[in-house]
Amino acid sequence: GFPGIPGRKGEPGESAYVYRSAFSMGLETRVIVPNVPIRFTKIFYNQQNHYDGSTGKFHCNIPGLYYFSYHITVYLKDMKVSLFKKDKAVIFTYDQYQDKNVDQASGSVLLHLMTGDEVWLQVYGEGDHNGLYADNVNDSIFSGFLLYHDIN
Amino acid sequence: GFPGIPGRKGEPGESAYVYRSAFSMGLETRVIVPNVPIRFTKIFYNQQNHYDGSTGKFHCNIPGLYYFSYHITVYLKDMKVSLFKKDKAVIFTYDQYQDKNVDQASGSVLLHLMTGDEVWLQVYGEGDHNGLYADNVNDSIFSGFLLYHDIN
Amino acid sequence: GFPGIPGRKGEPGESAYVYRSAFSMGLETRVIVPNVPIRFTKIFYNQQNHYDGSTGKFHCNIPGLYYFSYHITVYLKDMKVSLFKKDKAVIFTYDQYQDKNVDQASGSVLLHLMTGDEVWLQVYGEGDHNGLYADNVNDSIFSGFLLYHDIN
Ligand SMILES: [Ca+2]
Ligand SMILES: [Ca+2]
Ligand SMILES: [Ca+2]
Repeated sequence: GFPGIPGRKGEPGESAYVYRSAFSMGLETRVIVPNVPIRFTKIFYNQQNHYDGSTGKFHCNIPGLYYFSYHITVYLKDMKVSLFKKDKAVIFTYDQYQDKNVDQASGSVLLHLMTGDEVWLQVYGEGDHNGLYADNVNDSIFSGFLLYHDIN
Repeated sequence: GFPGIPGRKGEPGESAYVYRSAFSMGLETRVIVPNVPIRFTKIFYNQQNHYDGSTGKFHCNIPGLYYFSYHITVYLKDMKVSLFKKDKAVIFTYDQYQDKNVDQASGSVLLHLMTGDEVWLQVYGEGDHNGLYADNVNDSIFSGFLLYHDIN
Repeated sequence: GFPGIPGRKGEPGESAYVYRSAFSMGLETRVIVPNVPIRFTKIFYNQQNHYDGSTGKFHCNIPGLYYFSYHITVYLKDMKVSLFKKDKAVIFTYDQYQDKNVDQASGSVLLHLMTGDEVWLQVYGEGDHNGLYADNVNDSIFSGFLLYHDIN
């Protein structure tokens, strides 16, 4: 007899495509308040809504390795921010301001997160390091994305 | 007669590996001209040639979510650049220069692009913010890569 | 006779998940020595141990395209670092320090690596550009990750 028909196409490789989590948010006004999460409310990307602009926190829904980065416009005052993970400051970025010398400060780090872990930025200290600035033509941005999801 | 031989094995499932787009380009000389794309012509990586050094523009060939980052050496003048997507400035990075105080300014953002979208950097304003500097031992770099391609 | 039975189903698409390499390391003390790799010994992430804190070098185990980024706190002295790949300085980041004006400098780049290639940061010159600073509440960080592994 004739050869059989070809087999069905294989299934897609375990797809990375369901494992997506990313946000990129901008500051809309100067930050005044220390000791609480900074709320980035200008949306560049937040399709999965894992970043909550009302709390300022990124909420991990997919366990894995994440890359976080931030870029801060330093103006009017010195600036120091901490990147928090689960109520613990993980990294600190400090930049001093001098008159007529706006600066840019940035940080990035890879962090492994479990479901439910939260990550955010907040001003360090008691209010003397809140020189974060943003307006319509000056940005301060906080971004993060899932790089590698955990394998079961 | 006898049944035919079995059909051919099916094709492998879809792989993510065809979805690649990345560039990392350096500035080779000071930037003087505002209001046109900055041309980064020193190639660190541009295998897919989606960044065009002759125009200064990244051209999206694969719809999806991209990460863009840039690091600018600020020297001789104040510096302000905009990251453009489709003729619209999306983010602005400003750093003032003071004598004998070379600075570094950087920005990064996640942007969703459709096929044909173009992304580039350009000096903001009328020429008083063009303090971007680079030479053989000082770099200013613009990079981008596809993080998640669109499904379907 | 009858047609043969259908062929076997194809194999699943290749999975990306075995291709993982990433590190994120912090500086623990000021850097004094030029011309040798800077040793980042504070571990934020180094699961695959491809970064060696005892040598300061990242060792490529999976050929492909990598993203490297670093953020340096500039304090007390001017700062200039080079990112090396295989004994050649690929990029240079320079930031001058002025009294009472701590700065942040950063760089990032995409580099294609072969198995065995090493990548590291080191102070440029003869010791007059070693203004890298870090302590318990001030970070300087070096990170890298495999973005796309090479396809055979
Ligand atoms: Ca400045
Ligand atoms: Ca400086
Ligand atoms: Ca400063």
